Amino acid sequence: MSPAAVDVLAIGNALVDVIAAASDERVAELGCDKGAMTLIDAARAQSLYAAMGPGREISGGAAANSCVGLAALGLRARFIGRVADDQLGEVFAHDIRAAGVAYDTAPGGPQPPTGRCLILVTPDGQRTMNTFLGASHALAEADIREADVAAAGILYLEGYQWDPPAPRAAMRKAIGWARRAQRKVAFALSDVWCVEGHRAEFRAMLAEGAIDLLFANEREAMALFQTGGIDATVAAAEGAAPVVVITRSEHGAVVLAGPTRHAIPPAPAARVIDTTGAGDLFAAGFLAGVAQGRPFDDCARLGAVCAAEIISHWGARPEADLNALARAAGL
Amino acid sequence: MSPAAVDVLAIGNALVDVIAAASDERVAELGCDKGAMTLIDAARAQSLYAAMGPGREISGGAAANSCVGLAALGLRARFIGRVADDQLGEVFAHDIRAAGVAYDTAPGGPQPPTGRCLILVTPDGQRTMNTFLGASHALAEADIREADVAAAGILYLEGYQWDPPAPRAAMRKAIGWARRAQRKVAFALSDVWCVEGHRAEFRAMLAEGAIDLLFANEREAMALFQTGGIDATVAAAEGAAPVVVITRSEHGAVVLAGPTRHAIPPAPAARVIDTTGAGDLFAAGFLAGVAQGRPFDDCARLGAVCAAEIISHWGARPEADLNALARAAGL
Repeated sequence: MSPAAVDVLAIGNALVDVIAAASDERVAELGCDKGAMTLIDAARAQSLYAAMGPGREISGGAAANSCVGLAALGLRARFIGRVADDQLGEVFAHDIRAAGVAYDTAPGGPQPPTGRCLILVTPDGQRTMNTFLGASHALAEADIREADVAAAGILYLEGYQWDPPAPRAAMRKAIGWARRAQRKVAFALSDVWCVEGHRAEFRAMLAEGAIDLLFANEREAMALFQTGGIDATVAAAEGAAPVVVITRSEHGAVVLAGPTRHAIPPAPAARVIDTTGAGDLFAAGFLAGVAQGRPFDDCARLGAVCAAEIISHWGARPEADLNALARAAGL
Repeated sequence: MSPAAVDVLAIGNALVDVIAAASDERVAELGCDKGAMTLIDAARAQSLYAAMGPGREISGGAAANSCVGLAALGLRARFIGRVADDQLGEVFAHDIRAAGVAYDTAPGGPQPPTGRCLILVTPDGQRTMNTFLGASHALAEADIREADVAAAGILYLEGYQWDPPAPRAAMRKAIGWARRAQRKVAFALSDVWCVEGHRAEFRAMLAEGAIDLLFANEREAMALFQTGGIDATVAAAEGAAPVVVITRSEHGAVVLAGPTRHAIPPAPAARVIDTTGAGDLFAAGFLAGVAQGRPFDDCARLGAVCAAEIISHWGARPEADLNALARAAGL
């Protein structure tokens, strides 16, 4: 196995977030499920956008956010995801490249348009996401090169992209390439509905050893293992993959690495403005730690520092110097 | 004269701001003139964007920002400005309508695209603007209805729009309609280069009484009156229009209303993140005060409160409740 030329190769949705403040009442009036991620079609995207308050557009996409976090930490990241040939596609491509992430997925035509995530942020900082996937769905096997997978130390896959058939087939192929090249595969469950839709397949992938590192938040982990309560979920998750990371918002994170359990507290956040991207940036910090060969508890601490930064401002792309924050936290 | 159905009708550039952090060194490397507004063509917009850091897209445009501030203060504002039939045009139209401003200017075709302002914000919070006007230039007389001008208590014009010939002709016509309807005309000089390019015309307009309320920052006022130093500039500005407002950044503002002079200190800002829109929001507060019949010194204080809010975060659209801030300041 040759040394990795890239630390992390990630495959995910290429989205621009459209972020607006909204009251809890307004979120309910708009028929949104507070805190969840809901897939919406073009017509719903149009009507919901018309009803939303003034927005700010900031590039997003779960795995893409993680890549930007990795690059901000000085790691080498490559992202694969499909935009359209339109202005939001230009925004996405510009922002991820300007952040130092390698990105060369060819855009599709002008239709379907670049995917976007309409995000309502309530005064408690919680985000309610409504995603119109648009061009993201059209990612195909041909967009992923075996050489890129083989050159990356970690292949990182976003559960959100498992739903549409073409990206799923592409990701399955990428897992095979990563295995052949003896690279690690990390997988994020992304959302409870991803788990509900693909539980048997995800559990089979875990059972056959296709996943080395599983990221799940508490609710996703409960959905995957069909457990109730954190203790039963942690017990069920033990050994499901060589490393399982369960994030628990303000309760921190649990890392299960073989027989070892680490419970990591959250990093202190200066303020909570918008929790969009908290999980993505936790994953960025954790993956950076893994790539740097840190012990898993330090990987989780680095993840917590990155998550604390991202929730302190609007949007899921880091604004502060993550390395400086990590140093300040003794990492 | 019938009561005004709208408090302020504004005509200006319809732009989306693309805002990125940059060091002073980077601003210089990119060939930008720190603190200034520079008009750029499509090719320069492309190369500058490619060289900029990751951005956030937030609707902008000077007079449009003022309209959003007016609406946030509970005033009735209408905006006229041209976007293209593209995604950034949708963003602009959505945001200004969602903020409660009446906006129904028909978009142009897909080309030229919606105008954008590439803004580099240095660590001191100062913004350096590079504007690609795009569709904004195509505003025409037919986009302005005499009935809308006659129905508005104040016609507010942005000096930036004086440069291209078609919008200038449209604005001249609007001034005539406002005069005929006995409405007030407010004019913002916008930038030193606007003054340099149109000094004789601006001074002639002032001399013939076409402008009731002139907004200028210190540098623009010095350029208009070809004076040096604030004292000589204030002396030269006295009587140039019934009301002249000279904004002075951290030194506050001077209001000249007939023989009366008011020097108003700046409102305290919690922090200075991005000064984009400070002048636009000062104008919003001042115009709101005028529409409400407040004394001019209170108009300026309200402007200062709005300016202090806008510089405390990224972008030129208000995030906090401006009325609550005004009440907290005793206004």
